[in-house]
Amino acid sequence: MNFEVTILGCGAAAPTSRHNPSAQVINLHDKLFLIDCGEGTQMQMRKFKVKMQRINHVFISHLHGDHYLGLMGFISSMHLLGRKAKLHIFGPQELWEIIQLQLRASHTFLVYELEFHPVDDDEKRMIFEDTTLRVFSIPLKHRIPCCGYIFEEKERKPKIKKEEIARYDLQPSQIISLKNGNDITLDDGTLIRSEDVCIPSEPIRSYAYCSDTAYAEKVIEAVKGVTTIYHESTFLDAEKERAKETFHSTATQAGIVAQRAEARKLILGHFSSRYTDDTEFLNEARIQFDQVWLADEGTIFHIE
Amino acid sequence: MNFEVTILGCGAAAPTSRHNPSAQVINLHDKLFLIDCGEGTQMQMRKFKVKMQRINHVFISHLHGDHYLGLMGFISSMHLLGRKAKLHIFGPQELWEIIQLQLRASHTFLVYELEFHPVDDDEKRMIFEDTTLRVFSIPLKHRIPCCGYIFEEKERKPKIKKEEIARYDLQPSQIISLKNGNDITLDDGTLIRSEDVCIPSEPIRSYAYCSDTAYAEKVIEAVKGVTTIYHESTFLDAEKERAKETFHSTATQAGIVAQRAEARKLILGHFSSRYTDDTEFLNEARIQFDQVWLADEGTIFHIE
Repeated sequence: MNFEVTILGCGAAAPTSRHNPSAQVINLHDKLFLIDCGEGTQMQMRKFKVKMQRINHVFISHLHGDHYLGLMGFISSMHLLGRKAKLHIFGPQELWEIIQLQLRASHTFLVYELEFHPVDDDEKRMIFEDTTLRVFSIPLKHRIPCCGYIFEEKERKPKIKKEEIARYDLQPSQIISLKNGNDITLDDGTLIRSEDVCIPSEPIRSYAYCSDTAYAEKVIEAVKGVTTIYHESTFLDAEKERAKETFHSTATQAGIVAQRAEARKLILGHFSSRYTDDTEFLNEARIQFDQVWLADEGTIFHIE
Repeated sequence: MNFEVTILGCGAAAPTSRHNPSAQVINLHDKLFLIDCGEGTQMQMRKFKVKMQRINHVFISHLHGDHYLGLMGFISSMHLLGRKAKLHIFGPQELWEIIQLQLRASHTFLVYELEFHPVDDDEKRMIFEDTTLRVFSIPLKHRIPCCGYIFEEKERKPKIKKEEIARYDLQPSQIISLKNGNDITLDDGTLIRSEDVCIPSEPIRSYAYCSDTAYAEKVIEAVKGVTTIYHESTFLDAEKERAKETFHSTATQAGIVAQRAEARKLILGHFSSRYTDDTEFLNEARIQFDQVWLADEGTIFHIE
């Protein structure tokens, strides 16, 4: 089952010729989710061949322009393209006011339904669930209310080996019991151990989006155990005072978060326009944590 | 004195890989004016090396997203880049509400002053004037309130030939009188004709931006005598019913407007994404009017 993240934008604040403002698309078990939607996101989707009509859920972290100013254009283009499916938007309450005001101003009556779900940054909370995954909002520490998001696969039951079903002529109730981890005894007294006949399920994969945020204990707490963390790295360590003042993080701090949260992989992004060589972020974070990768527009990360 | 228009976007509604949403920059006597500001305009400015901090006046035609959704990003980037000069924004009253709501939501206190000037589409009206130019808003005919804009040089007084000043030992009051078109008689009885000693001033140049609009008599009336007209040409004539329904124009209609308004040049833009070859617009409009040009991102038109 696939689980991948396509970066559409990983620059901070003002866009540059190298980086677009924040946006990324999660493909989790063939369902697409958009996280943040900076200006130009719909053009980036076209460029990187993301099927925008397949996105049914959008998650906005906060209301700084570089994280949401592309949303109205995205909503409007899907209207013009004749979208039918409902679109769910998760974000701060004021976002709904902004959307509605702009729809009114353009006299637009959308041809599809928009459902808004306000999020709060006070604590970690499950905000979406379906048969195969859960999405959580998590508190970040920024100048204005700001949520991160965690995407988590659900645990899948182990599969039973087909040859074992045939060998013992197992009935459905027995199969369910074995898959649930129970051992069973057949009528002839044979003991069948679950672990002998089942293929263990893959470990659960999860992805956390942490942007924008200062280095904070509550963030580490919230992402503990997540397998891949995307963490903002607006500055290098030489600018750590500036990072603190503006409630952003340095690459070093992002590395410490990943290390302390016991992640398997760290993706850095939200690079300030003052830097021209992103490998400096990589070098700095790798001192803290060895599995670090740099976000870049068009890059697809496979979550493992 | 320069007078040129740089096209940043000339597509309609949903952006495509060929065209960006509407935006263009006027350079009139070295003063920059932005007309419309679709999503991605600030990136287009960077791409085409437009000095965004030199823009002090922005004119928004109407509140369909493809004409203004890049404005908040533009306002925000100039804030981040430390702009000092006041920025004047002309547009429908609701735009001011949209801007203020978004500034509040992001807790942004701009480092420069923003002054909003509401425009109405009821009649042609002078909305800005300085020593060398005038800007008018003009009524267009669209689904929602929509203004076009005319940029017009002021008439410049003719210059007097230097050698004539020396020859007759002309005094300042005599020079002014001659420049104003009066003939004078010297103390010795010599008659000096204004037309003999003055270099005629260049003819006045003007530029009209007409997007979005249906074909309408009031538009022709408003742009009569303008030297260069940019007129929307969303559709080809085969789609004229669709143009009528959506309050847009065809290339043929744009050609008729230019011909009836006695313009010298017509620029076509706002091309629907359904077409892949813009030269069809050109061919169609040229049947009505021979001086037709196609807008394209990055093209600079010199207004003559």
